[in-house]
This record gives sequence, C-alpha cells and structure tokens, in this order.
Amino acid sequence: MTLNFEHTTLGQRVIFGAGEAAEKIAAEIDRLGADNVMVIISKSATEKVADFDEHFTVALWHREVVMHVPAEVADRAVVAARGKDIDLVVTVGGGSATGLGKAVALETKVPIIAVPTTFSGSEATNVWGRTENARKKTGIDDAVLPATVVYDAELIRDLPGDLAVASGLNALAHCIDSLWGPRVDPINQALAVEGIRALNEGLPSVRADSTDLDGLERTLYGAYLAAVAFASAGSGMHHKIAHVLGGTFNLPHAQTHATILPYVLAFNAPAAGDAEQRMAAAFGAPTALDGLQRLRGVVGAPTALSELGFTAADVTQAAELSLQAIPANNPREVTAEELSELLTAALNGSDPATLS
Amino acid sequence: MTLNFEHTTLGQRVIFGAGEAAEKIAAEIDRLGADNVMVIISKSATEKVADFDEHFTVALWHREVVMHVPAEVADRAVVAARGKDIDLVVTVGGGSATGLGKAVALETKVPIIAVPTTFSGSEATNVWGRTENARKKTGIDDAVLPATVVYDAELIRDLPGDLAVASGLNALAHCIDSLWGPRVDPINQALAVEGIRALNEGLPSVRADSTDLDGLERTLYGAYLAAVAFASAGSGMHHKIAHVLGGTFNLPHAQTHATILPYVLAFNAPAAGDAEQRMAAAFGAPTALDGLQRLRGVVGAPTALSELGFTAADVTQAAELSLQAIPANNPREVTAEELSELLTAALNGSDPATLS
Repeated sequence: MTLNFEHTTLGQRVIFGAGEAAEKIAAEIDRLGADNVMVIISKSATEKVADFDEHFTVALWHREVVMHVPAEVADRAVVAARGKDIDLVVTVGGGSATGLGKAVALETKVPIIAVPTTFSGSEATNVWGRTENARKKTGIDDAVLPATVVYDAELIRDLPGDLAVASGLNALAHCIDSLWGPRVDPINQALAVEGIRALNEGLPSVRADSTDLDGLERTLYGAYLAAVAFASAGSGMHHKIAHVLGGTFNLPHAQTHATILPYVLAFNAPAAGDAEQRMAAAFGAPTALDGLQRLRGVVGAPTALSELGFTAADVTQAAELSLQAIPANNPREVTAEELSELLTAALNGSDPATLS
Repeated sequence: MTLNFEHTTLGQRVIFGAGEAAEKIAAEIDRLGADNVMVIISKSATEKVADFDEHFTVALWHREVVMHVPAEVADRAVVAARGKDIDLVVTVGGGSATGLGKAVALETKVPIIAVPTTFSGSEATNVWGRTENARKKTGIDDAVLPATVVYDAELIRDLPGDLAVASGLNALAHCIDSLWGPRVDPINQALAVEGIRALNEGLPSVRADSTDLDGLERTLYGAYLAAVAFASAGSGMHHKIAHVLGGTFNLPHAQTHATILPYVLAFNAPAAGDAEQRMAAAFGAPTALDGLQRLRGVVGAPTALSELGFTAADVTQAAELSLQAIPANNPREVTAEELSELLTAALNGSDPATLS
C-alpha cells in the first residue's frame, strides 16, 4: 500500500487552562497587537465573563446571538464592528456565537479568538454559515478560522449533563466517521484516534458529574480533535445516514447519531483493517465495537431509533436515500438490502454485533 | 490531572504521491497563483527533476546549494530571486536546499514548495538558519514555513541504505524525545506516536531494500511527523545528551543519537506513565524499550559509544554538561551519578534494560 494523499493542516493556536480564559485572552490580544476588541456573547452567558474587564479593554460588547447565523443578525454585527473600528473579535459560546464571529471576520478580515462553551467544534474549522430566507448557506474561507482557541472548562460546568454527553457522543461520531471519510488520510486518522481516546476518558466522568473539570477538559480536547479530523476527512457513511434520518425523517440530531453509530461501526469494522484495531486501542477494548458499546453503556446512550420516532415503514426509503450519499471509498461496499438490515437493527435496538 | 498547555499548529499543505512530484508542484503553483518560479536544487540532483520543465515554467534554476546556508550563498540566492521577480520558490533536496529556500523566503516573503529528499524534517518547521563567520544563527519566522510540502519517494530511491536508516533513526529520536520535551503537550504526543508507528513500519523495509517505495514513503511520513512534533515539543533529555556528545566530544551525529536513544528511553520509561504504553503500542511491542530494541536490531543500529570514539575518561564531564541542560519537566529527576551510569552503559553497549 502506498501513501497518496493531500492534507491541509490549518494553522491555529490552541490554549487549555481551566479558570484562566480572561488571562489567556488578554495575552493573545497583546500577542496579536489588537486595540479595539469586540466580544460576542449571548445575554444568558454574560455572567460567565464578568472578569474580562479586569484583564483587557472591551471596545464593544455584542449580545445578539441567534442560532444558525441569520443574515440580518450577521449584518448588524458587521456594522457594529465597523462602527467601532474593531480589529479583533472574541467569541464566547457555542456554534452560534462562534458562527457570528466568523460572519464578522468574513467581511472585516479581523482575527478571532474563540472561547467555545459546547463541544460543537466550529472553532477548529474554516467553515462559515449564514441563513437567508430560511436556507443555510455555508462556505470555506481561511479568514474565518479562529487565530486562537481558548478552552476553559470552568466556563462549561453549568452545561446540563445530558446535553454534555449528547454533544460529546456527537464528537465521537465525528472521530469514528473520520477513519473512513471521503478525504481520509493517515493524519486525520491519527487525530481522530487521539480524539476517541480523550472522549472515552472524558465522557464517563462528565456523565458521573457534569461539573468535573478533568472530564470536561478531556471532552473539550476530544471535541477539538474530532472537529479537526472531521473537517479534513469529510462526512462518511455514518453522517450520510444521520443526515437522511435528520433531514427527511426529522429525527433529533444528537440522539440519532448516538443510536446509529454502533451499527455503522459494526458494519464497517470487519473491512476497516488497521483502523479497527487503532480505535479498539483508543477505547482500551478488545474491539472497537466493544469499546464503543462499553462507553455507550456507561453514559446511557439511546439504543433504538423506534424511541426517536422512526418506524419500520421508513426503512426502505431511508436506505435508498442513504445509499446514494455513501462515499465510494467506504471500507465496505454497501447494498440497499444491507442498509435496510442495518436500519432495522437500529430501529429495534438489536445487538449491533449480530449485523452480518 | 488537568490539561494546561498552549499548542501552535502551523498551517501547511502536505502532499504524498510517489513519482508525481512534478505534477503535484505544477498544481500547487497554479493554486498559489505564482508566475515566476525559482527552483533551488543542488547540481548533483538535477537529473531527478528533468520532467519539471514539462509540467511548469521555471523562471530561474538556482544550483548553488551549500551545507548550513552560508550567508554569502544565501545573499546570492536572494539577489538572484529579486533579479527575476520570483514569486515562488521550489526547493528540492535535503536540509541545505530547504534552508536556502527559507533564506530567500525570509527576505522576499514568497511562498515555498518544499520537496524533501532526506528525512531531516526542516520542511515542516518555521525555523531558519544562516551561517556567518563560522557561526550558525537560527531564528523563527512563519514566512519561512513552506506553504506546501510534496513528498515523492521516487526521488529518494538513490539514497544509500545506511544513510537512509541513520536519518530515519534520527527522526525516531525526535519522536521519542517529543514525548517529554520541555513544551510537551497531548497534541505533540499524538503526532509523535503516529511518527513512531510509521518509522517502525518503514525502516525495516528500507533496511531490506533501500529502493522500496512503500518503506521510503512510510519513513518520509514518519520523519514529517517527527519534525512537527519535535519543533513543537522542543529538545528533551535525549537531545540534550546527544548535543553534548556531539558538541564537546565531537562524536558523529546520527550514530550518537542511535546509540544513546535506548538508554534514555530505558531511564525515562518507568516514570513516563501513559507515554510509555503509547510508544509500546506504536511499536507493536510489550514495552517501548522492547519495541525500540527490536527495531534497532532489525536495522542494525550501532550499540556502543566506545565504537564512536567516546571513552570512560569522558563520562564524568559529559554527565555534568548534560545534567545542566536536561529540562526540568523530564519525567524522572536525574542526578550526575545516574547520568554517569547511563553514559557508561552506552559506552560499553550494555543492555539498557539493566539500567536502574
């Protein structure tokens, strides 16, 4: 087997330190030589950053953060930034806050310091999104890649445990699907495997105690790697099926991912070669599927699509739609029949290990 | 244990494809929108790139490549580049060719496409060097980080087997020392472990047949990861000792590294925790030391410093000089006595496993 691939590593600085966000941001503002700082943060999160003013000067607080970056919200943020000659944006929040910061950077080319408070991973990519007339448009531009990401687990200790675990399992799906995504390469695989290792360590602690700093940090770290690997490798079989189930059958995003992941893994694993053993090692388990199922058991992941509103009548259509989207490089060739079998097993919550 | 670290990922595109360098370079020149391309390559390597002219236009061939980038050689290359309005430099060669390209980029800010023909790893770093009045000055500047690296194993099939193995073991030392370097972090560790995996696969094939494309590619890949991890983590105990042995006692670089590596690993391993098991897994061996020794056996690595000109009379001074340089974060505290013991074992080629 020869190596034949093209991998783009995005240049970015990543800083970890619980309870130190304000200090770390201040140091980065100095390093980047910015004078007029805009902080984007939702109203509900404002209390979390009461200490920012002690560490650096904020020229503009911007608190209009809305899901999916509506065009008019983005435009208002750009106008506000220009009005204050903003030369750096700090975003504090989940994908919506990061997304709004990216909208500002796309127009003004100012650098972003992102402080993520979920495991969405948007902070580690050069992908921007904007919703206009109820349609989300996305694009790629290196100008929106945050220059620095500051991960501070103290800021996410208030994340509800169920949400944290669901979001962490979503990151795990990014890692696993990166092992065979359409642009998979050994570098993505190495980062994805490290992400699995971190999430497998972090999520049980978060499940046991959603304020546990160590568990939250490991989950943040795993989610960061998941985003880096997945942005590079692209959507594999798992995300193509999940997209159909979410888009056409309107199943809930996070739970759907968590439910079908072991079935896709069980299906692909026998053909995934080396990748299967590397995942197993990252899980510290004899097989990748054993490891995933153990973790799912510990964190109490959902087990059957039937609980999420999927029915036996949906299986054939879902299989057909998914089949068209599955990348040609999937480790195992897939037929409509096999997909129906997989979806039926996921519908009923049967043991994935019995998938042929 | 909490996570507390700052990691800078350097943005760079990496392309692997045996026999495809000219095509890949042409595509990258297009992507980067360059018009006037300078190719830096030593006279002796010119034949290797006879097909470049078929794929892209070369405005300037520059063939004065000298070890350690002498200032006058660098200055002549800069003048030549400016004279032809060069807007992109392609370097083909080892550290000297890459280094000269970096000297041009430092002054002119043009991007570099590096095509490495050794395992030195300079292509993956933002470090430049320049030798003036017999003193080498080095610095860090993102302007010298190659925008793209093209790895083409076909171009290194003429590398003599002994040299290839020695250079590959040097890369392995970069990986292992990155596990506990002064700026070690989990990201460096993950990349270093992946590098060990690749080198452990590649080097035996290169030893058996130094024209084996698969082995050469894996070794190139491992050397790339070694450089990324090591540039980020910095010199650990191994490199500090090797630096003293090379600098003060004038022992040969590559062989010295290859000889002392198992002793440093044996010394640090019991205190390295998780890192030890991760290295072991990468070697596919019960312990990291077992794995390293197996690989060293297969490739015929040197085993005793006595064969390299080191004597028992040198041990005390070498231990004292090394001790001052070993980073404070080394997994195990080191005394002069322990260092003397380590160096004596390496001098005699005793079994590293017997180090206390």
